[in-house]
Amino acid sequence: MTRTQLVEEINRKRSYLCVGLDTDIDKIPPHLFSTKDPIFEFNKQIIDATLPYAVAYKINTAFYEALGSRGWESMEKTAAYLPKDILKIADAKRGDIGNTTDMYAKAFFEHMGFDAVTVAPYMGADSIVPFLKYEGKWTIILALTSNFSSSDFEQKKLASGNELYKLVIETTAKLGSSSNIMYVVGATKAEELADIRNLIPDHFLLIPGVGAQGGSLSEVTKYGKNSDCGLLINSSRQIIYASSNEDFAQEAAKVAKAMQMEMSLYL
Amino acid sequence: MTRTQLVEEINRKRSYLCVGLDTDIDKIPPHLFSTKDPIFEFNKQIIDATLPYAVAYKINTAFYEALGSRGWESMEKTAAYLPKDILKIADAKRGDIGNTTDMYAKAFFEHMGFDAVTVAPYMGADSIVPFLKYEGKWTIILALTSNFSSSDFEQKKLASGNELYKLVIETTAKLGSSSNIMYVVGATKAEELADIRNLIPDHFLLIPGVGAQGGSLSEVTKYGKNSDCGLLINSSRQIIYASSNEDFAQEAAKVAKAMQMEMSLYL
Repeated sequence: MTRTQLVEEINRKRSYLCVGLDTDIDKIPPHLFSTKDPIFEFNKQIIDATLPYAVAYKINTAFYEALGSRGWESMEKTAAYLPKDILKIADAKRGDIGNTTDMYAKAFFEHMGFDAVTVAPYMGADSIVPFLKYEGKWTIILALTSNFSSSDFEQKKLASGNELYKLVIETTAKLGSSSNIMYVVGATKAEELADIRNLIPDHFLLIPGVGAQGGSLSEVTKYGKNSDCGLLINSSRQIIYASSNEDFAQEAAKVAKAMQMEMSLYL
Repeated sequence: MTRTQLVEEINRKRSYLCVGLDTDIDKIPPHLFSTKDPIFEFNKQIIDATLPYAVAYKINTAFYEALGSRGWESMEKTAAYLPKDILKIADAKRGDIGNTTDMYAKAFFEHMGFDAVTVAPYMGADSIVPFLKYEGKWTIILALTSNFSSSDFEQKKLASGNELYKLVIETTAKLGSSSNIMYVVGATKAEELADIRNLIPDHFLLIPGVGAQGGSLSEVTKYGKNSDCGLLINSSRQIIYASSNEDFAQEAAKVAKAMQMEMSLYL
């Protein structure tokens, strides 16, 4: 999916919502266990119900890998089920040397047809460049995450005066463009978004941590939005576990719709 | 596998060799394609042939994921095939927030029975602590990798005067002990091993990049060895692709044996 297509979808749906499919076998409604693939059945119903309100879906690979090859199969089926006009993100946080990164690109872009993959930058450009060879695909690089221990390394000051996450942004932005690189920036750091926008005015930011984790949609939008919107706000648990009963998909749709309606005011 | 058991195996086999199963469907001998699961068949023969010379096997998840759920199945079968007295390493380089790391721990330690998993430290302690809850399991943290772009971030000087990889070692070593944490240190930086040994005299180091990537076994051993050996030297391509013919397993064994014989001199 190109940047033009993504921006068109955002304007058409008046939404920059990404639904996070962190589908946990221990949290899905019990009635789904009578189906052949409860994880896929859950995802399918969540997707059907929330599709009018979302422009992206993010599959967190860990939740599928916890179930082994069976979980990996549910992930493949979910990726295949998502329609073409949706940005399909593999939240895989991979990061390795070049020849191994080639294999991850095959896994997520070729084998499963994802449009985007999240990448950990610790090992440097080798972890990123192989993904950038794919036309119309996106590499979403971890910059400043929303978890408590992001202060351990990401926020550490370098001898040059910058925090590590800023060096990550500056260094990796040169490897591609705002049409094939995005950054993960946690919503709990809304005031830091202004700084990040100075570094990369044009790039899209994938923002987790709004809602359940405490970030405010209006604050994040205020500091993070650019002229192409430039934001994808992810919500996982708050949407997909809105209800633990048979009405889970309708309840998920209600939460997604409320977020989309708030977003439409800001666009 | 506990530290005592690992050290016993090293002394028994007089080896600190780790065989890297970076099994690439495009590189395995063509005659294996008549079998039901060529990747597993290749691994099985490599394991059978090299087992007398190795104390650890490292499965690089990317190569399996490139084939989707079918590849994930070959990985599960390979992990199950490895005998109990071998340290089974998932070279997964995962790294995420706490609740997601829990899921990765389930995937690698519970579902597949690996003894160890490699972890990327960018997001801090949250990416590590959940793995440490498992008795007898190991978390192998990326410190200084052997790839060219390790200079992008790992080797950058912090305001405190230390390089980032040293802060990673100092910070994360406090989260566990030398009985449940190891570090990845690339062999191309043999002289830096002495520095690292000052920081962590007791920890095991997993060292890739000997052989094909240019590091010297004698140099690495000189700077990296401690009283419990404290080293696992990984070799992947040099062993598993020693021959591309029907004799691939015997040729792999010859290379592994030569490495083990050199190692036995240093122990």
